[in-house]
Parts: sequence; structure tokens; C-alpha cells
Amino acid sequence: MRVGIVGGGQLGRMLALAGYPLGLRFRCLEPYEDAPMAHLADLELGAYDDAEALLRFARRIDVATYEFENVHVASARQLEAHVPVFPPPIALEVAQDRLCEKTTFRELGIPVPAFAAVDSREALDAALATIGAPAVLKTRRFGYDGKGQFVIARPEDADAAWAALGGAPLILEAFVEFRRELSVLAVRGRGGEVAFYPLVENRHRDGILRVSRAPAPDITPELQALAERYATAVLERLGYVGVLAIEFFEARDDEGGVRLLANEMAPRVHNSGHWTIEGAETSQFENHLRAILGLPLGPTTPRGHSVMLNVIGTAPDIARIAAVPGAHLHLYGKEPRPGRKLGHVTVRADSAAAARAAADRVLPLLEG
Amino acid sequence: MRVGIVGGGQLGRMLALAGYPLGLRFRCLEPYEDAPMAHLADLELGAYDDAEALLRFARRIDVATYEFENVHVASARQLEAHVPVFPPPIALEVAQDRLCEKTTFRELGIPVPAFAAVDSREALDAALATIGAPAVLKTRRFGYDGKGQFVIARPEDADAAWAALGGAPLILEAFVEFRRELSVLAVRGRGGEVAFYPLVENRHRDGILRVSRAPAPDITPELQALAERYATAVLERLGYVGVLAIEFFEARDDEGGVRLLANEMAPRVHNSGHWTIEGAETSQFENHLRAILGLPLGPTTPRGHSVMLNVIGTAPDIARIAAVPGAHLHLYGKEPRPGRKLGHVTVRADSAAAARAAADRVLPLLEG
Repeated sequence: MRVGIVGGGQLGRMLALAGYPLGLRFRCLEPYEDAPMAHLADLELGAYDDAEALLRFARRIDVATYEFENVHVASARQLEAHVPVFPPPIALEVAQDRLCEKTTFRELGIPVPAFAAVDSREALDAALATIGAPAVLKTRRFGYDGKGQFVIARPEDADAAWAALGGAPLILEAFVEFRRELSVLAVRGRGGEVAFYPLVENRHRDGILRVSRAPAPDITPELQALAERYATAVLERLGYVGVLAIEFFEARDDEGGVRLLANEMAPRVHNSGHWTIEGAETSQFENHLRAILGLPLGPTTPRGHSVMLNVIGTAPDIARIAAVPGAHLHLYGKEPRPGRKLGHVTVRADSAAAARAAADRVLPLLEG
Repeated sequence: MRVGIVGGGQLGRMLALAGYPLGLRFRCLEPYEDAPMAHLADLELGAYDDAEALLRFARRIDVATYEFENVHVASARQLEAHVPVFPPPIALEVAQDRLCEKTTFRELGIPVPAFAAVDSREALDAALATIGAPAVLKTRRFGYDGKGQFVIARPEDADAAWAALGGAPLILEAFVEFRRELSVLAVRGRGGEVAFYPLVENRHRDGILRVSRAPAPDITPELQALAERYATAVLERLGYVGVLAIEFFEARDDEGGVRLLANEMAPRVHNSGHWTIEGAETSQFENHLRAILGLPLGPTTPRGHSVMLNVIGTAPDIARIAAVPGAHLHLYGKEPRPGRKLGHVTVRADSAAAARAAADRVLPLLEG
């Protein structure tokens, strides 16, 4: 079975590494010869939206998926005329537009921060009047890793925010006082069966994910069930197949309880699920492949406790990381560049305390 | 860092899969374009002993290793003139000749079955007179998976044995009444540090490994320590770097205790260590790479209990295997052929009983 992946980055690379043991072959559609996945899979050289390249690509694969969510929907639909494409292109459409995404969450009864579309300077004032400050002005499309966002602390910041982002379709979202960010990794098979990994706690810096802890500490069964109920609603609404990540803000409700506000979703394997390679019985990568191939899903049971730390910007000292027991290094074959995700390290241990202690040894090694 | 592997079979494939996360690149010297490793690494097309191909290969790698033990020693030494080669070629030399291997074990104080060199029909009679029947006549070189062996049940079988194997240099070994076969996977780093996986219990059929259980049941700390002492002696004698497997017969000693008789060794990653991919904190493949690169060795601690089952001859029903919780499929990308190792399945569980129960579900799926 030949799996085609649109995009040749680290997510594609880890999909291929998980899929070779299943006897699969991989081909990526990718404009750069030295992309992380190109080292270890067949390469269809071409832009992601090049109709001719897409056609060549489609002819040499049996099923298609993608490893980033900004694949043009038209390109995904072009592929769909030739081979099954999972997740379904509708999931791209929803995830690519924050307004559409938030609206979908709300329609499904999933709480979200207050939001409003902003298409003009006047609309920004109107939205601010309704939502209040602080709030976050975001581009509706093509934002990632904190890019395309402006925090409006006070109404007077509106001009600066508009200067920074005005022109593109925007959305204003209420700034949520949240305790932490949690994400759920869900997977749905071709037959409709679903599985969930335990909630993960994520810490960002400069808009980029730095550390994930899995399973997240202090999660009640009720909160896990709530996240799974929300994810199920999205999976079913979209007729989804594959791994889906949803990021939540964990916040207090009026009675002092805990609630989840959906922030965004990613219709693909996700950075906050990298810990599953060592930390779960079946990795998110293998389960994504199982799902799109129509195979039974694998157990999502965690194996002990994991902390995942991203390697950002600077090439790490491999020997010093390898010297930390339980530290598992994953480099993506990318040249160092400031702010670039070059790899990650997962430390796995049988107790949360041991995992945290090992992570505390690894963290200084990643500070460059 | 570019790692060169002589041979492009499944062991090379699993080395590459373990090594990409460390940021390594792989090139294999291999005469077949569709070899298991060729799908996912750079290929230097050529015979293993083609001097020109070896030179081209050596120029494009930083360190060399091999994934089968019948690499010509002269070829390994040719590579050594250009790049570091691990394990050292002397290990090939010893492992390629059963007489040399057994003699080395004996010199190091490691018990072995009685043996004698057999270079003529008369020498066979003389050896049989000393060692007695039953005994096993084996070719000294290039035997594997039970090939090149003839069991001499009674002295009258000598003619048939000679007819089958005579002409090549041979060795006669006493037939050992053993309880089971155990193997130890040892690894030694470039700085001389050593680590050991727990003893594994192996079951063969038709001379081919079928099932490994790890950790092997009913192993006393004394027996584990004994195996490690034996392995250490071999590692140090050979100045070894990388993973070494030694197969032992577990037999009764005269006082009713347990003893280990060394059967053979493999100077490479080994089929009885495949369980370490899921079943140990660091796989044998990653530890082999760590060793030859001079990185600290990773923990060899088992994660629960594993049973590894080889997939032989017939392509398995992937979906049915995937439906067994905790079953991890590894296919090697090879065409089915009777007696051919096509892959393996490792079932991992938190208890030995659960691992065995899952293995009992997988085994019938592999009977073709």
C-alpha cells in the first residue's frame, strides 16, 4: 500500500517512520528536496498546489493524507478525484478559517471564547465594544505558532493592532484568563470507531509549544470525558478519519468548577501528541495510518508518564541528551535557524515525578 | 553523521528506522534494489565484496557497520582503511568460523558442548569416538537458520552426514540435552562501557527462530549475572563495539543446578532482540547506533513483558493482527516465499500472563 503525504516536514517524516513497520511505502509531495521526510521516502517534487504535480502524485499512491493544515482545499479535492483523501477536505476548510472553526465549535455546543468577525477598522471598534479588552485580534487564515496575532490589552491598542494585521480577514477573540492549555488527541477510523489519548498539558513560549506533559496532571475523569465528548462531536460532524487535535483553555466556571474552552483544532497529527511514540501503546502516527487505511485502531493507553520538550532554533548536544536515562531524542534533519522546530525530546518514566526530574535535566540542554 | 551499513536486509532497515530520530543519514551497500532497507535509505548498489563499490561506499559515509555476519573480513578491513568500522572485523572473523568461535569461548572459560574439527571422513570417526552420539555435524562457515547441519543420532549415521556435508571444513559438536535456548543481547560502547538486556527465551522450528519471550521466565539473578559475565569476556577479548548476541543452551549441571553452554554468537543486532523496540526503554537498534557513534548507551530496562513472534513464509492478515491489543507488527517489505522471514510481531503487556495471552491470539494468525 502506497501512502501519499502532502508536505514533507517532520510530521510526514514521523508518519513514515511509524508506517514502514506496517509494510507501507511513502511518497511526499514537497517543493524542497531536503525536506525532513524526503530523506527517507519517495519524493514528488512540486508545489503543494501545482495541479500537474498533484496529478503525478495521485497516480503513484493508493491513499492520500497531509501533514499540515494549510493545504489548499482545492488541491485536496483534486486528489480526491483519484484516491481516497483523509482527513476529509471539509476538515481543512473548517480548520483553515478561525471564524468557521469557532462557529463550528459553537454550533456543536462546545464552549469558545467570545468572538466576532472583523473586516474593517469600524468592525474592530464594534467588536471591541461587545467583547471588551483585553482581547486578541487574529488573522482568520494561515496563522500558526502564534504568528498573525495581536493582543489588544486596552481599547487604545486598536490602532496598533489594525496597523499590524488590518487588510486580511480577521477575528477578534476575548482574552481568556486560563489556568493552562490542554489538548486532546482523538482518532476516528474509517468505520466510525473512535479513540482518545489522555489530555495533555501544553506550555508555550513566544507562541511556540515548548513542553507537553502527558497524561496532564490533575485531570478528573469528568474532564477527560468532557474533552472526549467535544472531540467526538467534531469528528462526527466532519465525517472525520484520522488523528484530530483540539486545543482547549482550561478555565474556571462561575461556580468555581473547571471548564474547557476550545481554542483551535488541527486536522492532523500534532506536536502535543509526539510523546505517544514512546509514551503510549500505539503512537498518534501509527493510529493516524491505521485510521486512513481502515485498520483497527491501536490502544491509546499511556505507558507511564511522559514529558515532551521541543528542540527549537539551536542544534542540541546529542551526547548530553542521550546521557539522560529515559530521554528519547527525535531530530527532524533540519538546519538550525532561530525559532525553527528542529526536533523534540520525550522523557518517559514510570512515575510523573521521575519524568519531571528527567525533563528538568534535559531542559537546560535545550536552552542553546 | 552518515552511517553506512553493509547489507540492506531487515536488520539494516530497523537500524535506519531507529537512527533517523537521532538525526542520522543511512546508506547501504547492497546488490538488490528492492532490499528491505533500500526503500528508506540511500543505496550503494553493489556486491558486498566488490572493491570498487566498497570504495564508493566508504567515501560517502562517516562510520560503517554491518547487518549480517557473513561480510567478508577482507571487505570489512578495506572499509576500515577509510572509516571506523564497528563491530571490529576480528569479531566477524571469530563468528564466521564455528571452530574459532567455540575455541574462543573455551579460552575465555565459557562452557561449550564438546567439539572437534572434522576435515576428513576419518576425522569424523575419530571425533565421534571421542564425543559420542548423538552429535551434530556442522559446516564451520556460512551456516545460519539451521542450514549446514546434520544430526548424527547413532554412529551409523556418519556416512549420511558425510555425504550431506563432507568437503567443506566441518565441526562435530556434542548434542546437548538442553531445557531451552536463551540468548543475551549485550552492547559495548566506544569507551568500553557495557550494558545487557535481560535474557531472552527462544523457541525454534525447522531451525528458524519462531518465538522469543523477554524477559525469559524463571531466570535467577545469578543466571543473568553469569550470562553477563560470559558476554563481557567476549566483548573485552574482541575489543567489541556495538550489539553482540550470544545464544546459550540452558542445561542441568551435575549437582542439578543450571548452567549455560555457549552455542554461537552474532556480531550484530539479532532477531532475539527485536522485542526491544517496544519492550525496552532503548531498542537494540538504537543502542547499536549509540555504541558505534560513541554516544552514551541508553537504558536496557524492559517495559513490562514481551513475546516476539516471527512472520515466516506467508504474508499475514494485517487487520487481524492489528486488532490484538498490544500487538506491534513489523513487516520488512519482502515478497512472501516459503521459509522466508517476512516480519515479526511483538506483543507487549504489563504482565507475563497478559503478554502470553495476547501472543496466543497472534500465533494462529501467523500459521498461514
